[in-house]
Amino acid sequence: MIPESAKEVVDELREQVAALHGELVRYGLVVWTAGNVSARVPGHDLFVIKPSGVSYDDLTADAIVVCDLDGELVDGELSPSSDTAAHAYVYRHMPEVGGVVHTHSTYASAWSARAEPIPCALTAMADEFGGPIPLGPFARIGDDSIGRGIVETLAGHRSRAVLMQNHGVFSIGPDAKAAVKAAVMCEDVARSTHIARQLGPLVPIPPDDVDALFDRYQNVYGQTGARR
Amino acid sequence: MIPESAKEVVDELREQVAALHGELVRYGLVVWTAGNVSARVPGHDLFVIKPSGVSYDDLTADAIVVCDLDGELVDGELSPSSDTAAHAYVYRHMPEVGGVVHTHSTYASAWSARAEPIPCALTAMADEFGGPIPLGPFARIGDDSIGRGIVETLAGHRSRAVLMQNHGVFSIGPDAKAAVKAAVMCEDVARSTHIARQLGPLVPIPPDDVDALFDRYQNVYGQTGARR
Amino acid sequence: MIPESAKEVVDELREQVAALHGELVRYGLVVWTAGNVSARVPGHDLFVIKPSGVSYDDLTADAIVVCDLDGELVDGELSPSSDTAAHAYVYRHMPEVGGVVHTHSTYASAWSARAEPIPCALTAMADEFGGPIPLGPFARIGDDSIGRGIVETLAGHRSRAVLMQNHGVFSIGPDAKAAVKAAVMCEDVARSTHIARQLGPLVPIPPDDVDALFDRYQNVYGQTGARR
Amino acid sequence: MIPESAKEVVDELREQVAALHGELVRYGLVVWTAGNVSARVPGHDLFVIKPSGVSYDDLTADAIVVCDLDGELVDGELSPSSDTAAHAYVYRHMPEVGGVVHTHSTYASAWSARAEPIPCALTAMADEFGGPIPLGPFARIGDDSIGRGIVETLAGHRSRAVLMQNHGVFSIGPDAKAAVKAAVMCEDVARSTHIARQLGPLVPIPPDDVDALFDRYQNVYGQTGARR
Repeated sequence: MIPESAKEVVDELREQVAALHGELVRYGLVVWTAGNVSARVPGHDLFVIKPSGVSYDDLTADAIVVCDLDGELVDGELSPSSDTAAHAYVYRHMPEVGGVVHTHSTYASAWSARAEPIPCALTAMADEFGGPIPLGPFARIGDDSIGRGIVETLAGHRSRAVLMQNHGVFSIGPDAKAAVKAAVMCEDVARSTHIARQLGPLVPIPPDDVDALFDRYQNVYGQTGARR
Repeated sequence: MIPESAKEVVDELREQVAALHGELVRYGLVVWTAGNVSARVPGHDLFVIKPSGVSYDDLTADAIVVCDLDGELVDGELSPSSDTAAHAYVYRHMPEVGGVVHTHSTYASAWSARAEPIPCALTAMADEFGGPIPLGPFARIGDDSIGRGIVETLAGHRSRAVLMQNHGVFSIGPDAKAAVKAAVMCEDVARSTHIARQLGPLVPIPPDDVDALFDRYQNVYGQTGARR
Repeated sequence: MIPESAKEVVDELREQVAALHGELVRYGLVVWTAGNVSARVPGHDLFVIKPSGVSYDDLTADAIVVCDLDGELVDGELSPSSDTAAHAYVYRHMPEVGGVVHTHSTYASAWSARAEPIPCALTAMADEFGGPIPLGPFARIGDDSIGRGIVETLAGHRSRAVLMQNHGVFSIGPDAKAAVKAAVMCEDVARSTHIARQLGPLVPIPPDDVDALFDRYQNVYGQTGARR
Repeated sequence: MIPESAKEVVDELREQVAALHGELVRYGLVVWTAGNVSARVPGHDLFVIKPSGVSYDDLTADAIVVCDLDGELVDGELSPSSDTAAHAYVYRHMPEVGGVVHTHSTYASAWSARAEPIPCALTAMADEFGGPIPLGPFARIGDDSIGRGIVETLAGHRSRAVLMQNHGVFSIGPDAKAAVKAAVMCEDVARSTHIARQLGPLVPIPPDDVDALFDRYQNVYGQTGARR
């Protein structure tokens, strides 16, 4: 059951997360029912997430389900996403994370199918990810392997996205919108970097320039200085 | 003539199949009038299918035609798809199939023009297809060659899609929606796998992991445990 | 001046040609104001064509101009397309042609920038083009060089499209819609064939199969047996 | 403060620049909030530009801000784009420039990540850019390095676009619409030329043909002979 004190924020997050799935569609990161967004309920051991196998056209706020941090269904009429255990693991082990996104976006998945991290040759990538986007292990769905792979790869890393080998992308952020932005930017730089390397070697960005770009973007970009 | 007892279900299938062609357009699997979806009429030796050479904009439920399992027109004012014989052959020889889709989708057709099956290096492909997507023979339109090629390749295979050499894709499913999903997923993994291999060798997924992923997806994914 | 007897058909063709430009946009064959469609006025030495440098959003039937077969403006308030001379040359020398389309569509232009015809490794290409799509010469705009290059390449060829070296595509048909279809199919097979060849050699379709496919498609496909 | 005499034109430019950002979205040149358009206020040391980190969906005319030629905010409630210093530098040093556009469009960025100019093998590129699209230096955001790199590369060059190494594209024009057109055409030829070179060497266009094409397009194309 959702505690009385959480009901209003849960309603808002259901609306927000339903709408954010539309961004995955808009940017072409998902096909059919693949891909999912979740958001932690601040101050509660709960998160909201997409139900399993539901079409994006049918994804109203009402369809979004609520789970506890063990991934068990707390509220909602549908079964939670089959990736719920991975989201739950991230929320349990990374208290700073408020949103998680999973996609099989084309170019990022392609890097993952060769088990290669994405090298940093574009300033937009230095800005958002602070360097290469790392590769996580191959992990089978069904237990905590995927969640553990995500957390072990991203802990202490600047990158907000990880390529899970032979699988796709998980991205994180302080809230669900930031995690969606990371998913969008990850595919964008995965694509540009792939295309660049098709015709010859990349020119890498020197590490101190990467550091300076990352630092500036995290602190100066946007309307408030806050990361968005 | 459509038997009285089939009329209601035929009307429903015409609506459904007309709408499902919209998914081929949405996912960019077809251009101009190429591509077609059909659905078996359960309990009758009939199926509904797209008429030949009709634009997707004009594809109302009324335009969808009804054929018998020899591919002969039973109801409708337009000539059936030029691929009708292939659909009919599949329905005659694969009683478990309730829907068939044919497209020339770009990446799948590209694998077929090199006469290569698509290797399995992505979990989404293990989930949906249970391994590689196989290659069928080159077959000329006009007799049962295409239908026979589809059935011989898919019989006893886990994959719901076959690349017909130098041609395109046929996909099957328990109903038309599942066959459309297979067509969409086939192009998606054909694209990601192509892009992955452009920059180096793929890392294959070990066979027992493929088996486990396929098994789980067929039984656990979605809202009912039923494959969708 | 438009002869009285031609006014009604000119009005219809203006509507039709304005609408057909929308197909170039829908299939991604054009950016900004590049690309143009024209249609012969049957029984008159006239054709209608896009005005020069006008945005597709602003392309109403009223904006379409009428030219004679020397490419001189006969009716309309705007200057005709800068490719008008090439269209006019085709109409003067190929009486069977009722529509002409020009685009810089991406994949077709890419083949043209390497001065390579597109080989025939897909049945859809055999159907529509009856074999490879040929390469025309490099020709500078400003005189009859482009028109001559188109006519010399397509005369006696089955293909309804020609890649003009370092430039783009011209396609023809018995009417403007058929020429637009050829432009759409040309880009589609240019893309699939390009992607196929990225990862290895193509498997060619044997010539007698190409002949049989072309013959069948021209005579059997669609609702009337007429080519569409 | 905006001088009284500039208020009307500033209002018009805000409308125009807000709308022109929609063209960046339409042609797929930008994702999320990346990319920006600015326009000089004729006769005043001012320009209008996109605010920093604002979504394209929220980009009304009211959101567009006004800066002086040092890049300082003169009017508007939001912080100006983080690329404002580069735009300002261009306006200070290139008096003929009335519009500036910046994007990370995919194919152009890919050439920049290999530090390669785009060679001229397509007539559309000769028309618009008069030859290759040049490469500017790697430059860190935060001072005048980017602006200086743009101006030093484009001064005395025919091209209206420059690839900034490891970064993206800046394009210029007599007004903002022309600069947006240059950004659109830059990505279009970056893509076609990339794809052409994937399968073999390009056939270059002879220099005197490039000169003739550029000259003709600048003087004859469109409705007025004026460049558009």
